Amino acid sequence: VVAERVAVRDLVERARGGDPRAVARLITLVERADGPHREVAQAVAGCAGQARVIGLTGAPGVGKSTTASSLVGALRSRGERVGVLAVDPSSPFTGGALLGDRIRMQAHATDPGVYVRSMAARGHLGGLAVAAPEAVRVLEAAGCDTVLVETVGVGQSEVEVVGAADTVVVLVAPGAGDSVQVAKAGLLEIGDIYVVNKADRDGADIVVRDLRQAIGVAAPEPGAWARRIVRTTATAGVGVDELLEALDAHAAWSLTSGEGARRRAARAATEIEALAVARMRAELEASWSSRGHSAVVQELAAEVAAGTLDPWSAVDRLLAVKEA
Amino acid sequence: VVAERVAVRDLVERARGGDPRAVARLITLVERADGPHREVAQAVAGCAGQARVIGLTGAPGVGKSTTASSLVGALRSRGERVGVLAVDPSSPFTGGALLGDRIRMQAHATDPGVYVRSMAARGHLGGLAVAAPEAVRVLEAAGCDTVLVETVGVGQSEVEVVGAADTVVVLVAPGAGDSVQVAKAGLLEIGDIYVVNKADRDGADIVVRDLRQAIGVAAPEPGAWARRIVRTTATAGVGVDELLEALDAHAAWSLTSGEGARRRAARAATEIEALAVARMRAELEASWSSRGHSAVVQELAAEVAAGTLDPWSAVDRLLAVKEA
Repeated sequence: VVAERVAVRDLVERARGGDPRAVARLITLVERADGPHREVAQAVAGCAGQARVIGLTGAPGVGKSTTASSLVGALRSRGERVGVLAVDPSSPFTGGALLGDRIRMQAHATDPGVYVRSMAARGHLGGLAVAAPEAVRVLEAAGCDTVLVETVGVGQSEVEVVGAADTVVVLVAPGAGDSVQVAKAGLLEIGDIYVVNKADRDGADIVVRDLRQAIGVAAPEPGAWARRIVRTTATAGVGVDELLEALDAHAAWSLTSGEGARRRAARAATEIEALAVARMRAELEASWSSRGHSAVVQELAAEVAAGTLDPWSAVDRLLAVKEA
Repeated sequence: VVAERVAVRDLVERARGGDPRAVARLITLVERADGPHREVAQAVAGCAGQARVIGLTGAPGVGKSTTASSLVGALRSRGERVGVLAVDPSSPFTGGALLGDRIRMQAHATDPGVYVRSMAARGHLGGLAVAAPEAVRVLEAAGCDTVLVETVGVGQSEVEVVGAADTVVVLVAPGAGDSVQVAKAGLLEIGDIYVVNKADRDGADIVVRDLRQAIGVAAPEPGAWARRIVRTTATAGVGVDELLEALDAHAAWSLTSGEGARRRAARAATEIEALAVARMRAELEASWSSRGHSAVVQELAAEVAAGTLDPWSAVDRLLAVKEA
C-alpha cells in the first residue's frame, strides 16, 4: 500500500507537470476502481472546481464531435489547457463511435495542452456517476482550465452526467430528428445554451423557431439565465466565437447568481449517493456469497421458473433469510 | 386492497380470454410497480415457461423490426399466438424508433393473435431485469405460444434481457458496422442463431465468412448447440422459413439437452437478485430521508465541492452515520 501511495503521488506530480501518460494512467485507476483509486481520489480532491466543466450532448449525427473539436481549438487559441471526456456507458456498440471521435480529435492529437479521453464505465462501481466526476478532478489536477464532457451515445446516464456540468450545451441539427428528439430526451429542461449546428442546411430556421418556442427564450424569469440559441456550422468553424461568448456569459452569470456553486454541490451530492449505494450493493453481494445465499437464490429461482412462486415473494423470503 | 385484488383477477381472466386491453393494462401495472403489481405477479406466476421466448438483437439499421414482423407473420400462419416486447431502457431518444416499430408492426395491428408492446423501464424498481420477465409472464398468461423480445436500442441492459431468452437471435447486415460491432458488443458469445439480413446486398458473403470464422460454427463442442448462420432478406420475406427451422431446431435441442431448463432458472435467479437489490436500495433511500441523512449528504457534498474531502471518505462518514 505504501508503494502504491508513493506511485500515485508521483503520478499526480507528473500529471501536474503536464505528462499526458500520467493523466491517462490516473483516469484508468479511477475508472477501474480496483487499485489505489482511493489514493487518487484523495490526491486530486483539492483540485475540485478549478476548471469550468462544459457538458455537450445531442442526438447522433448532429455534429457533437466536430463542435467539440472546434471549441477545443478556440479555447486553445486563448491559451487554455483543455480536457475532453467522451462518455459512453450504455452502448455496447462503441468501437466505431470512439474511433471516429479520436480521428476527428486528431487536429489536437499532438497538442500537449489537450487531453482527450473516452470513458465507458460499464460495470464500474457506481458507474459514470462516480467515475466521471473523479476523472474531471484528475483533469483539473492536470491544470485544465476547461473540461468538456461530451456524450458519445445518448443514454440516460450520460445525459445525467452531462446535465450536471457547470454549463450544459445541447446540440441539434436540421433533419436529425431535431426538436422532437430533444423534447423526448428531456433536453429542453437541461440546456443552458442550444446550438443549432449545420445552420447552413435547409430547415435550420425551422429548428431555431421550434426551439425558441419550446424553451421560451423570449421570457426568462427575473434573475434567471436567459437561455441562448447559437447557430453554428462547426465543419467550417462558423459560429464558434458566438458559442464561446455564450459560454463565457453563462460562466459569469453562474458566478454572480450563485448557480455555479449550487450545481457543484448538487453534483457532489449525486456522486456521494451513487457511491454509497454502489458500496452497499457490493457489500450485500459479498455477504450473500459468503453466507451461502447464492444457494438460496438458486432454490428460489427454480421455484419461480417452475411457476410455483412469484419473484416478489421469492425476494421476501431471500431478505428474511438475510436478516435471520 | 381487496378491490384491487378482484380487479387484477378480473384483468387476468380477460387477458386469458384474449382481451388485448387487459393484457396492456396488466403490463402497465407491472411496468409501474407502484400499484397492485404484486397481485399481478402472483396471478401470472403459474404461467412461467408456457411460451418460448426468443430474443432478437443487433445494431441499429440491420432490420430488426422488419425481421421481427416477418417472423410474427410466419408464426401466425402456423396458428401460434405471438407476443412482441420491444425493450428500450437506456435511450432517451426513443420516440422515433418506437413510432417506427409500431408502423412496421402495423401488418399485425389488427390481428387479435398478436400483442405488441414497447417497454422503456427507466426509473422502474429493478429496471428491465425485473419488468421484462414479468411482462413475459403476462403474455404467457394471455396464451402466447411465442414471445419475441426485441431490442430497440443497443444498450447493455437490453442485451442482458435479450441474452436471457430461450433462444437468442443476433442480426447483422452488410455495411451496418457488421462484424466489428457484433464482436465489440459481446454478441459473439450470446447468439444461438445469427441472421445475416439484407443478404441480397454487396458484402453479405464477407459478413457470413467473418461470422463463420468468429463464432467457430464449424467445430462445436460435442453435445453443444451447433450455432447457425441464416441469410435473410426480411423485406422480401426471403429466408424466414430457414430462420423458423433454425429456431425449432434450437428449441428441440434446448429440451433434450436440459439447456432450456438451465436458462429459465438462470433468468429467474437474475430477476430475483435484481429485485432484491432494488428493494434494498429503495429501503436504504427511504431510511436516509426519514432519518435526516439527506442533510448529512448535503454537508458532505459541500466539502467535496470545496475540495476539502474526497467522495470515498465522504461515503465512509455517511455509512458510519447510517450505522450509528
